[in-house]
Amino acid sequence: MRAYLDNNATTMVAPEVVEAMLPFYGELYGNPSSMHSFGGQVKRYVDRARDQVAALLGATPYEVIFTAGGSESNNMAIRGALEALAPEKRHLVTTRVEHPAVGGVFQQLAKSGYRVTELAVESDGSLDMDAFHYALTPDTALVSIMWANNETGVTFPIEEIAEATRERGILLHVDAVQAAGKVPIDMAKAPVDMLSISGHKFHAPKGVGALYVRRGTCLAPLIIGGHQEWGKRAGTENVPGIVGLGRAAALAVEHLADVDDLANLRDRLEAGLLARCPDVRVNGANRVPNTLNVSFEFIEGESILLMLDDVGIAASSGSACASGSLEPSHVLRAMGVPFTAVHGSIRFSLSRYTTPAEIEYTIEQVPPIVNRLRSISPFVPTTM
Amino acid sequence: MRAYLDNNATTMVAPEVVEAMLPFYGELYGNPSSMHSFGGQVKRYVDRARDQVAALLGATPYEVIFTAGGSESNNMAIRGALEALAPEKRHLVTTRVEHPAVGGVFQQLAKSGYRVTELAVESDGSLDMDAFHYALTPDTALVSIMWANNETGVTFPIEEIAEATRERGILLHVDAVQAAGKVPIDMAKAPVDMLSISGHKFHAPKGVGALYVRRGTCLAPLIIGGHQEWGKRAGTENVPGIVGLGRAAALAVEHLADVDDLANLRDRLEAGLLARCPDVRVNGANRVPNTLNVSFEFIEGESILLMLDDVGIAASSGSACASGSLEPSHVLRAMGVPFTAVHGSIRFSLSRYTTPAEIEYTIEQVPPIVNRLRSISPFVPTTM
Repeated sequence: MRAYLDNNATTMVAPEVVEAMLPFYGELYGNPSSMHSFGGQVKRYVDRARDQVAALLGATPYEVIFTAGGSESNNMAIRGALEALAPEKRHLVTTRVEHPAVGGVFQQLAKSGYRVTELAVESDGSLDMDAFHYALTPDTALVSIMWANNETGVTFPIEEIAEATRERGILLHVDAVQAAGKVPIDMAKAPVDMLSISGHKFHAPKGVGALYVRRGTCLAPLIIGGHQEWGKRAGTENVPGIVGLGRAAALAVEHLADVDDLANLRDRLEAGLLARCPDVRVNGANRVPNTLNVSFEFIEGESILLMLDDVGIAASSGSACASGSLEPSHVLRAMGVPFTAVHGSIRFSLSRYTTPAEIEYTIEQVPPIVNRLRSISPFVPTTM
Repeated sequence: MRAYLDNNATTMVAPEVVEAMLPFYGELYGNPSSMHSFGGQVKRYVDRARDQVAALLGATPYEVIFTAGGSESNNMAIRGALEALAPEKRHLVTTRVEHPAVGGVFQQLAKSGYRVTELAVESDGSLDMDAFHYALTPDTALVSIMWANNETGVTFPIEEIAEATRERGILLHVDAVQAAGKVPIDMAKAPVDMLSISGHKFHAPKGVGALYVRRGTCLAPLIIGGHQEWGKRAGTENVPGIVGLGRAAALAVEHLADVDDLANLRDRLEAGLLARCPDVRVNGANRVPNTLNVSFEFIEGESILLMLDDVGIAASSGSACASGSLEPSHVLRAMGVPFTAVHGSIRFSLSRYTTPAEIEYTIEQVPPIVNRLRSISPFVPTTM
């Protein structure tokens, strides 16, 4: 038995997506920018993919720029908007729980002279909205806030945030990498200026993503040099990846109706673990339907992961992007998760391909692993 | 009959490359950064691809950074090196015939206060090496010169250039996008600091490339945020693309032995067209073996392309990246190609998949097209 519960790290490429991509690794290898029909015929598939991604986001096709993934989209949005704006305003707002592809960019901007406000979160992961509104000043140029957290799945009230930034004429970028395909996203409703998505988080392949840029928003390119993507992102289009992203977006739209099933499966896992393991806490409220972040007190997440791996269960401790590092998660620290719990935190993340059997297997396998690790842990209080 | 002679725009993905990639769109979808073996098992395939690309370049694997393509590699190299260097030196050297992904970056750097020398080329496309040596000053921070031109195939003497920059302690970036797989590249011989390649120019897929960065060269990332590629390029690795790039690199190494066959086929096309069409000139000497850029005097390249397209022949006028624009090629203008010829320039670019039948077909089809267009051209001298 195997259980893949690490879908916030990466997802299986949907078979329909692979099927859609294959012709472009075969006969349809032309360059969509070519003046001959062998290349030109490819362009309409890129256009169709743009329509499909636009439909997922409630956008118009010319607001969709294809990129190589979520990190590029985030970097391009924040740095490109500030470069195009060349603002006299020198204040930026973000949160303490952003992905490093946003947080790292802000760290660099702080070094280059911007004043950065990093908003705190509550113990349940939610944003202190009073602090958010208070942070916006006449000097604020740009706000970047994620839609759903990669580690906990906690969602932020993007519509409320967007109304506030629009009212004050402040640019808003949203990292929706962990939200796309899990919650409805509608740019017609939320006045977001820029929004990042990544294909491989919703069953498209790795190496392709998109940046939504609202009509009228100026953006300097991160990659300079060609006319592609209306001069906003140079480089020959990754046609198979773009076609795959489009197909995955269309599938995501269809499957948004099934997210309750996904939430039920996640809730079953949550209830099963809480019922069978003492001293466990769930991190985060108001989550996307696929994510469960739990802290097993007094033991180390890395040890849990290794033992889960031995029985064929794939999960994550903190962000996959932070793996290899033994630093405790910046997200859980920002939520004030106690020291004894933050180190024993595991993220289980499901997808529409997750089966009830995988969930039952995980509920069965986790408790004995936790018990065994606690029996040798020096941190368990002696009164237990 | 069909003839695909636009391989400098993009190439067919080699069947062996597709085969190598497919498992990573299937069962091997894990994230190579994961702490579980399902993801971790993927990492060794990324490592092997890095070895394969290193072998193509005469580099060591830790000098290879995977990117989304040549444009990203070029942007990352030039801007990243200057950002890391934070140089007091404010002079840069490049040429008038670079690809827009280099030329455009230099235009931006010029706006931000750098002094840029754009070296001229001779009428045969070759670099004025006296001017090159003269351009290097104690204030020169970085030189970026392409290995092979995308429009003409003309190669520059990179080893001589690299010796000169090393001697003066000047950083050298080389855009080798059109050289990789066509001429031997050996970073152990040429002291180049950074070198860009793009997969889809040598039978790997679109959307993946690499940047060689010599050990000890400091480089700020273009995409900030994750630990991937030693912190030099954030974002989940495009595993299928990287595996494909590696396989394509290994194939390119094997097929470097066959480039004489490629050159013979190209020379056959050249001789055939020159013999059958009057008032034709070949643009460029010392070319990579796959490229033929010819100017048919008194007619328009766009019209030739359209009529070639009607008979199934795919070629290009000027750079594919400039298509859609009616600007005459900046490369041919830099070479001093006369007005009456520059507009009638066509690039034929071959690959190892090009067949003698495609070449014979093209030799047969081109002359009547040229004759027909000339018969209606207002530019043909009346003495003809």
